[in-house]
Amino acid sequence: GNEADNDLYINQAVVFIEDAIQYRSINHRVDSKSLWLYRRYYSRTCQWILSLTITIILALAFIEEPSSLTVTSDVRYRLPAWNPPCGLTESVELLCFLVFVADVSVKSYLIGWKEFWKNKWLMAYILTLIVSFTDWIVSLSFFCTESLRIRRILRPFFLLQNSSMMKKTLKSINSTLPEMASVVLLLAVHLSLFTMFAMLLFARTKDNQQDKEWMVYFRNLPDSLTSLLVLLTTANNPDVMIPAYSKNRAYSIFFILFTVLGNLFLMNLLTAIIYNQFRGYLLKSVQSSLFRRRLGIRAAFEVLSSLKETPTNAQQPYVSTGALQQVLQKVEMDSRCKQAIMRSLKMCSCDQLSAAQFQKLFEELDKDAIKQHPPSPEYQSHFMQKLQFAFGHPYFGYLGNVVALANIISICVVLVMDADKQPSERDDFFLGAINCFFIPYYLLEMLLKILAMGLRRYLSYPSNRFDGLLTVILLILEIATFAVYGFPHPGWRPEFMGLLSLWDMVRLVNMLIVFRFLRIIPNMKFMALVVTTLLDLVKNLRAFAGILVVTCNSLAVLPMQHLIMALCSVGPTSSWNIGPTTLMTLLITFQGKMFFHGALLHLLSVNLICRWAKIYFVAWWLISSVIWVNLFVALLLENFIHKWDRRCHRASLSDIEYQRTVELMFRDVLEEPTEEELMEKLHQHPHLQLCR
Amino acid sequence: GNEADNDLYINQAVVFIEDAIQYRSINHRVDSKSLWLYRRYYSRTCQWILSLTITIILALAFIEEPSSLTVTSDVRYRLPAWNPPCGLTESVELLCFLVFVADVSVKSYLIGWKEFWKNKWLMAYILTLIVSFTDWIVSLSFFCTESLRIRRILRPFFLLQNSSMMKKTLKSINSTLPEMASVVLLLAVHLSLFTMFAMLLFARTKDNQQDKEWMVYFRNLPDSLTSLLVLLTTANNPDVMIPAYSKNRAYSIFFILFTVLGNLFLMNLLTAIIYNQFRGYLLKSVQSSLFRRRLGIRAAFEVLSSLKETPTNAQQPYVSTGALQQVLQKVEMDSRCKQAIMRSLKMCSCDQLSAAQFQKLFEELDKDAIKQHPPSPEYQSHFMQKLQFAFGHPYFGYLGNVVALANIISICVVLVMDADKQPSERDDFFLGAINCFFIPYYLLEMLLKILAMGLRRYLSYPSNRFDGLLTVILLILEIATFAVYGFPHPGWRPEFMGLLSLWDMVRLVNMLIVFRFLRIIPNMKFMALVVTTLLDLVKNLRAFAGILVVTCNSLAVLPMQHLIMALCSVGPTSSWNIGPTTLMTLLITFQGKMFFHGALLHLLSVNLICRWAKIYFVAWWLISSVIWVNLFVALLLENFIHKWDRRCHRASLSDIEYQRTVELMFRDVLEEPTEEELMEKLHQHPHLQLCR
Repeated sequence: GNEADNDLYINQAVVFIEDAIQYRSINHRVDSKSLWLYRRYYSRTCQWILSLTITIILALAFIEEPSSLTVTSDVRYRLPAWNPPCGLTESVELLCFLVFVADVSVKSYLIGWKEFWKNKWLMAYILTLIVSFTDWIVSLSFFCTESLRIRRILRPFFLLQNSSMMKKTLKSINSTLPEMASVVLLLAVHLSLFTMFAMLLFARTKDNQQDKEWMVYFRNLPDSLTSLLVLLTTANNPDVMIPAYSKNRAYSIFFILFTVLGNLFLMNLLTAIIYNQFRGYLLKSVQSSLFRRRLGIRAAFEVLSSLKETPTNAQQPYVSTGALQQVLQKVEMDSRCKQAIMRSLKMCSCDQLSAAQFQKLFEELDKDAIKQHPPSPEYQSHFMQKLQFAFGHPYFGYLGNVVALANIISICVVLVMDADKQPSERDDFFLGAINCFFIPYYLLEMLLKILAMGLRRYLSYPSNRFDGLLTVILLILEIATFAVYGFPHPGWRPEFMGLLSLWDMVRLVNMLIVFRFLRIIPNMKFMALVVTTLLDLVKNLRAFAGILVVTCNSLAVLPMQHLIMALCSVGPTSSWNIGPTTLMTLLITFQGKMFFHGALLHLLSVNLICRWAKIYFVAWWLISSVIWVNLFVALLLENFIHKWDRRCHRASLSDIEYQRTVELMFRDVLEEPTEEELMEKLHQHPHLQLCR
Repeated sequence: GNEADNDLYINQAVVFIEDAIQYRSINHRVDSKSLWLYRRYYSRTCQWILSLTITIILALAFIEEPSSLTVTSDVRYRLPAWNPPCGLTESVELLCFLVFVADVSVKSYLIGWKEFWKNKWLMAYILTLIVSFTDWIVSLSFFCTESLRIRRILRPFFLLQNSSMMKKTLKSINSTLPEMASVVLLLAVHLSLFTMFAMLLFARTKDNQQDKEWMVYFRNLPDSLTSLLVLLTTANNPDVMIPAYSKNRAYSIFFILFTVLGNLFLMNLLTAIIYNQFRGYLLKSVQSSLFRRRLGIRAAFEVLSSLKETPTNAQQPYVSTGALQQVLQKVEMDSRCKQAIMRSLKMCSCDQLSAAQFQKLFEELDKDAIKQHPPSPEYQSHFMQKLQFAFGHPYFGYLGNVVALANIISICVVLVMDADKQPSERDDFFLGAINCFFIPYYLLEMLLKILAMGLRRYLSYPSNRFDGLLTVILLILEIATFAVYGFPHPGWRPEFMGLLSLWDMVRLVNMLIVFRFLRIIPNMKFMALVVTTLLDLVKNLRAFAGILVVTCNSLAVLPMQHLIMALCSVGPTSSWNIGPTTLMTLLITFQGKMFFHGALLHLLSVNLICRWAKIYFVAWWLISSVIWVNLFVALLLENFIHKWDRRCHRASLSDIEYQRTVELMFRDVLEEPTEEELMEKLHQHPHLQLCR
């Protein structure tokens, strides 16, 4: 019927607009039932469940067998980690798999059969699930005794496939790989040529005194390669050249040449290449996001324009404002945006909207969200107005900063004085007494500011929220201290009582005071710029961090003890001496989920570990340190330079707080898609048949 | 007279055009005698003498007292360095000073009194000379026994003031300083807050076993600061966190946070800022170079247009082609450019040139020099033509690369086999015998290539020159080996004879073969791009390298032994234990002219040196490592990205070799100065009175 058709069109428009808001593709089924399912699937609850499942399956690594969730990392002292009984983690895993199966089926159904075959991510998703499930069955049938579990390496994929930003980033990295490979090849050539040079230069001589260099660093090919590779990371600089240098200064030319060429030129070239390549691809992917948004809006316009209620006499398609209002009511979106669109719809005061007008209405979505602070309360009394002026003035804030600085300095002085004292000689009176003055001042400052600005305006500034929260915590700690240990007096050295000793309490309070000092940041212009850049970066970096987590997980979740012991004893290098101490050091380092590649390179240079472990470490270093750090630098450069340029263009940045995303950052350079491109894409839609 | 006037005008035009070619300012005296002096002063001979003097005065550091020009750097073994008698270096210095005095007087005279007062560089030059000379007198009157010589610190200034590129770079660095200072301030805040945190966190406890972290790294404020500062350079990572980490894993959060914030964010932010700021200023300085060039050309046009021989009836000023030809004959410039300008002057076939035409003629100066290789010889005989085709074909070059690779691999195999053998067991037969095959092949390849390409075309390719030179050296070495030691045979292990032992000879030959392998680079497209970028960079980096030399000299020429001993014993830290061994290590490191800041930080972390030395080291690290390396990265980024973009625009880069300079690199973005700007600047000229 006509009514049902109209309802369908309205629903389609709602979904298309929601797609546009979320930068989603519109290539999904558009019949009534699918639309219902689609909105359910992308509802907050469903997406939240999915995220929770992914978190759970990734967090399992912390309690599974080769895990290390113990307080101390020292193998000598630490208690055996809690070992979950066989079947516990496995049943949690099964539940997660079921959620993923539901997810993949809904997704596949929604995009339709034809699109499914084009979507490699979905197929990889299904494949991963099948492999994981098979591995799960194998694991259960061995009663959890088998050591190598493939499904653990596959887990990060679930995180990866769920984030479109992460997929884009991975695509960018992927397209930069050929150039990176070239530089890595160049590095390899550089390394191997210099290794041969070194082996010829530092050959064994007849005089045993003279060839220390050969003994320690260039004994054979693997040793020489390792020495120079570690020199490339500057970890063994200048130790590696000291024996040769003390024999003859001229040997230093070799090392200087190697370092300058490898470290200064080639490594920085890698940065340049990654910056150059990556910048382009990020821009491209943001451009495609913009296209998706415009396409969604246009699709909504097209379906609304074919509503039966409107007479189709005009050449130009148009949409009635009533229908749009009906759609907007149903759309889930940011309430500020919705209100702004409604407002401009009313101001337009026309019945019908052309495509351009329709598109223009939704440009509100692209705008920066400008934060407005609630107004200060208006006091009647003249005295109160004066108070409000005094304590609402920036100078009052500066005074607070000065007091905080004084507090920091006094803590510093006490620390320097107490540095070498025995704990028994130490007098907690000073540190305690100081806080008796400063913490009430902080409380007073907070209350006066609330008085002047009103609670809502006070809380609308992030710096105030930070300040207030810390002041409240400090107050509670201080009151607790006094309640337990009494007021401070000279020779105030009570015995241990309650949860924390007095000394620990005082230390905690002082740490919080040091932390509170960060409130000065917004007052310094350049610092504020830097810090907002960093905060923006953190927002945009979620994708990066995700990929780092994925890499770390894949590399570190491998049951390393087993792997290394297996490889090193099976391989041709069983004569390499791995004593229990070495293995212990290895394990200590490994349990840190390999955050510190420095430790690994240190181990590399000590030459105590077997060849396979070495290769593994080098791979780790290349991926985590070289490539990831360079990607990070590229993003930081891009972000900062952009921000800096904006700051130079617009002087009055201080008052307005913008919420920036990657999409907004590039807006000036983005190209708007043309009408023809949009319509061509719309006609290619697999499920939507347009009337015209 | 008229004739004399015309001669003056012609001479002025010649000098202005030479100024334009060399990007020099035209604000100098323009009377006949001054012009003669000016051309003499900027002649090759005079400038060469000046450069030689600067080199000599800088090289004096190598033979003066706290020098270290000895073979070994080990204080235990090395002979006392040669100590020049008092008065020798001093008289050389006096000669240098005389040259500088002549230089500064000529320069000051040429720019004139009024300009002199505006030129801070010249005034600093005079001041430096006065201070140096005073110090020289003091030094002589003490018979060279005084230890602190101020003039040594001032010496690098002579290098600095003589290079305009270096002055520009220094200006750029100078204008970036405020932003850099902000980040350094942020780093300082970061460091000090975390230090206080660390001191509160790792305070002394009652259990002596438990506070290893406090004992080693956070004993007091200077220790804590040092530990964290060194952690910022990642030199003591992860050692610094191991004691705390093995006590409780949660402590690693502190170190991770510190490293991520400081090292990943702030340090890279410094890179971003320096890149952003520096790029702008380099562009600006190149823009001002362009302005100088255009101004010089325009000034030449103006003086030529006021030649008396031409009738001044026309409204538009113009220059006769005859006068220009006369000028061009006198101008000293690149012969290729001169010919090109002469050619286009003839092709123009007009008598008179307007300002625009005149300017256009000299645009030849801005063009890339396109290198053309001489043609191959044309052989009559059919057989020779076939030979020429075969050996001139790229495949023949590839075959040579394959043979070189085979040679490398064979050397590598022998090295791996011989790695652990005693020198007495070692058989030199294999390495010697291999070369008996390969070196004749290299010779044959060279000869055949010369046959196919002709000697001149062969030599016009840098890769061939490299190849040929090494082949000839290899041949000579091989013949010398056979002449001294006879032909190789199994068990070829002759005793030591002549200058080098057989083993050394063979090693040298093999090193050269490894070096020769670099000829493969131009065959790989991406590698060639990278290498040309690097070579370009080296050309453009001369200014940077100069400034680095200047910094190193200023910091390292200080008689450090005296300084540190004086400071450390006078200061409040005389209790810091500086034993003879520490001092020895210190000295070893210092004598290397501090190239390896790694060593310094290592010393810092060992905590054995006094407070003043620490401050000195930190300053050194900041200047050399952080700022200079970042500047380098900035230039590399700029250069590479530019080159890359050009490569993408223009596909057929391979055949044409461009000679690029900083000026040409930026040409696309430079703005041409307008007519008005040029004329305004010309009318401000302090010595030139234009008729109009």
